[in-house]
Amino acid sequence: MQTINIGLLGLGTVGSGVAQVLRDNGAEIARRLGREVRISAVCDSRAERAAQWCPQATLVANPMELVQRDDVDIVVELFGGTGVAKDVVLKAIESGKHIVTANKKLLAEYGNEIFALAGKHNVMVQFEASVAGGIPVIKALREGLAANKIQSIAGIINGTSNFILTEMREKGSTFKDVLAEAQKLGYAEADPTFDIEGHDAGHKITIMSALAFGTPVNFGACYLEGISQLDSRDIKYAEELGYRIKLLGITRKTEKGIELRVHPTLIPESYLLANVNGVMNAVRVNADMVGETLYYGAGAGSLPTASAVVADLVDICRLISADRENRVPYLAFQPSDVQQANFVSMDEISSSYYLRVRADDQAGVLGTIATLLAREGVSIEALIQKAVLDNHQAEIVILTHHTIEKNVKNAIEAIESQECVREPIILIRMESLNG
Amino acid sequence: MQTINIGLLGLGTVGSGVAQVLRDNGAEIARRLGREVRISAVCDSRAERAAQWCPQATLVANPMELVQRDDVDIVVELFGGTGVAKDVVLKAIESGKHIVTANKKLLAEYGNEIFALAGKHNVMVQFEASVAGGIPVIKALREGLAANKIQSIAGIINGTSNFILTEMREKGSTFKDVLAEAQKLGYAEADPTFDIEGHDAGHKITIMSALAFGTPVNFGACYLEGISQLDSRDIKYAEELGYRIKLLGITRKTEKGIELRVHPTLIPESYLLANVNGVMNAVRVNADMVGETLYYGAGAGSLPTASAVVADLVDICRLISADRENRVPYLAFQPSDVQQANFVSMDEISSSYYLRVRADDQAGVLGTIATLLAREGVSIEALIQKAVLDNHQAEIVILTHHTIEKNVKNAIEAIESQECVREPIILIRMESLNG
Repeated sequence: MQTINIGLLGLGTVGSGVAQVLRDNGAEIARRLGREVRISAVCDSRAERAAQWCPQATLVANPMELVQRDDVDIVVELFGGTGVAKDVVLKAIESGKHIVTANKKLLAEYGNEIFALAGKHNVMVQFEASVAGGIPVIKALREGLAANKIQSIAGIINGTSNFILTEMREKGSTFKDVLAEAQKLGYAEADPTFDIEGHDAGHKITIMSALAFGTPVNFGACYLEGISQLDSRDIKYAEELGYRIKLLGITRKTEKGIELRVHPTLIPESYLLANVNGVMNAVRVNADMVGETLYYGAGAGSLPTASAVVADLVDICRLISADRENRVPYLAFQPSDVQQANFVSMDEISSSYYLRVRADDQAGVLGTIATLLAREGVSIEALIQKAVLDNHQAEIVILTHHTIEKNVKNAIEAIESQECVREPIILIRMESLNG
Repeated sequence: MQTINIGLLGLGTVGSGVAQVLRDNGAEIARRLGREVRISAVCDSRAERAAQWCPQATLVANPMELVQRDDVDIVVELFGGTGVAKDVVLKAIESGKHIVTANKKLLAEYGNEIFALAGKHNVMVQFEASVAGGIPVIKALREGLAANKIQSIAGIINGTSNFILTEMREKGSTFKDVLAEAQKLGYAEADPTFDIEGHDAGHKITIMSALAFGTPVNFGACYLEGISQLDSRDIKYAEELGYRIKLLGITRKTEKGIELRVHPTLIPESYLLANVNGVMNAVRVNADMVGETLYYGAGAGSLPTASAVVADLVDICRLISADRENRVPYLAFQPSDVQQANFVSMDEISSSYYLRVRADDQAGVLGTIATLLAREGVSIEALIQKAVLDNHQAEIVILTHHTIEKNVKNAIEAIESQECVREPIILIRMESLNG
């Protein structure tokens, strides 16, 4: 199996996540890609982190040296910022290396220069992780919606701000108090300016705006207004009027030109975007053919961001060699790696259950039902006797805890055989959808 | 500019949508792709439709002939079903044509045979439109989440059923009544079995299950239970308990094997998935690295489905020629087609506004404020005087209709210059995000 060699710049939160993804899911990724992806060289001043996360990689002290190494096919830039990161990315491009970066600031401020140089040297630059973390929204904008004229984008694209706004609304706390809490929880930096004043969201909406409308990136054109001045009274009043306040990055093509702005925004509470809470991110796109689409997920964090970085690596690997085995496989995995599956019969699935029983309204019925459920190992989460119906019958609604479907069916059979139960029991499955 | 020739099979709802997308957005697509996509040949028994939608294309009566034509690079199969469609797709593959299809039934039931033949003949088969219409969820599963072990998928993937469940909940109507209404609105077929009994959702979750877990497609393993037996009382009881009932396609990898099932399901009302209403679709994916992501949009309809078909065409066109100009461009559009933008200044943006004014609680204040807003052309949607505060002051909250920001700022300045207004006015923008 062919090996693709990665040069990794930076072993911080995201860098160690990339190392972990490649270590833990390397085999699954190879099943999809038909190639092995390995970190051949790493640059980080903390030698012990390099030894911990990339024991097989060469530790290179000088990033300018790393990006010129023959054993590096793709450079993953995770230094962040626009100092060393910029110099190193430009040098890597000049050395013919493909680039994957999560650096929104670099692209929003110097993207035009970087892409021009990359075009000249015929290298790819991928940056899914730079916007909305693990959500594949760059891919949706560049590829999935390629048939559309995009009209507007509105995104909750800064998790710190969204966490603060969610807490202010749910607890009625002040901005100051929630910010202190967010800093304690690690959701906000010691200097939170970059997040709460809209700079981070501005970088991200600037990048998406360029992708949507086919214009150069232009961070200077982005209006920035953060949440630090937001009074919790306004959140409360907005809620009374049927709205939620979210920090949105907005870009829109109008007859006057392109709008590009970040500010607190009232949106109707029925919108999905209004119900994106905590540190989660979501991007809503309006486009002429498909209408509204929305993309939701974790916008930050080590592993979600690494998920996007590694997806970019996979994309580049597919294009490095143009042989047919290297296309996206029909069923996502290489044909030789598609494996026969064992499917679970419905009797064996595990779920919670909603049961509705219609029974004679007489003493002891509830006890009988509970006993018959317990006999099959089905435990009750909630049981409500609904209003008595005509014919002296009552309806009993039961929510069970998680159990095997076979057990519930056995219990239903036993309950239905009781004389006081005169109709088939209604069963509806109930899912938390976690994992 | 290179031209890619399409052979289009079927000019029904989706086929005419594809023709419309290529006609109306052909120039925008060429800006992204650097290639022109044109329909060179079309097969539909209705000659007048062909003349209307594809005036430049050759009308070919026999689909078997169309798929062998030299002026066809990619075959778009939109006949549907597993009769002629299957024969034609297999023949097209044998003739070395790449395939784009929206045919979920064909892939769920005969996908393994089709993909095996396609691999043998080295052709691409793309099928984004077969699942969840215009939402690029196949792309997310095959590419965007390539770094992950996918754990489970749960989707609202049948618009007809979701419309019926939404109406049953909101209006308390019976299944029968809502079905009749849905048929009148064109959301349900005359024979609705395929949608309401879960077959359609079953085809879609079967395809996603294979993509998620790297297994052959196996529709036979899918448990199907529809919504026709659902009693509106259960929807009501579920709601009282904090749940919504949705028809979900679910697939999950467990220690026992793969679960693959379609059935009405209770989910907590706080979930985004629980708030996907009407004919809209959404797919929630749990994966080990990125966690939960969700993809939302129109799951059916002429143009949304065509959006997915044309995105597949673009993907194939990029790979047909392996030259560097044909990669996904850095900024989504070809570098030579990236255009300088005119950005709109904040004074000129159009928005609604939330204003909070703190003023002395005296007669005439409301009138003064309303007059000053009206003088700048700002009309009021809602105005609420909040509880009187200490110092004989009141807070007045105003929602405006859409206007130019400059007008609002002028009005604010005028209001703030009134003696009875003692603090700066709070302004927060309000967006409907439509278009």
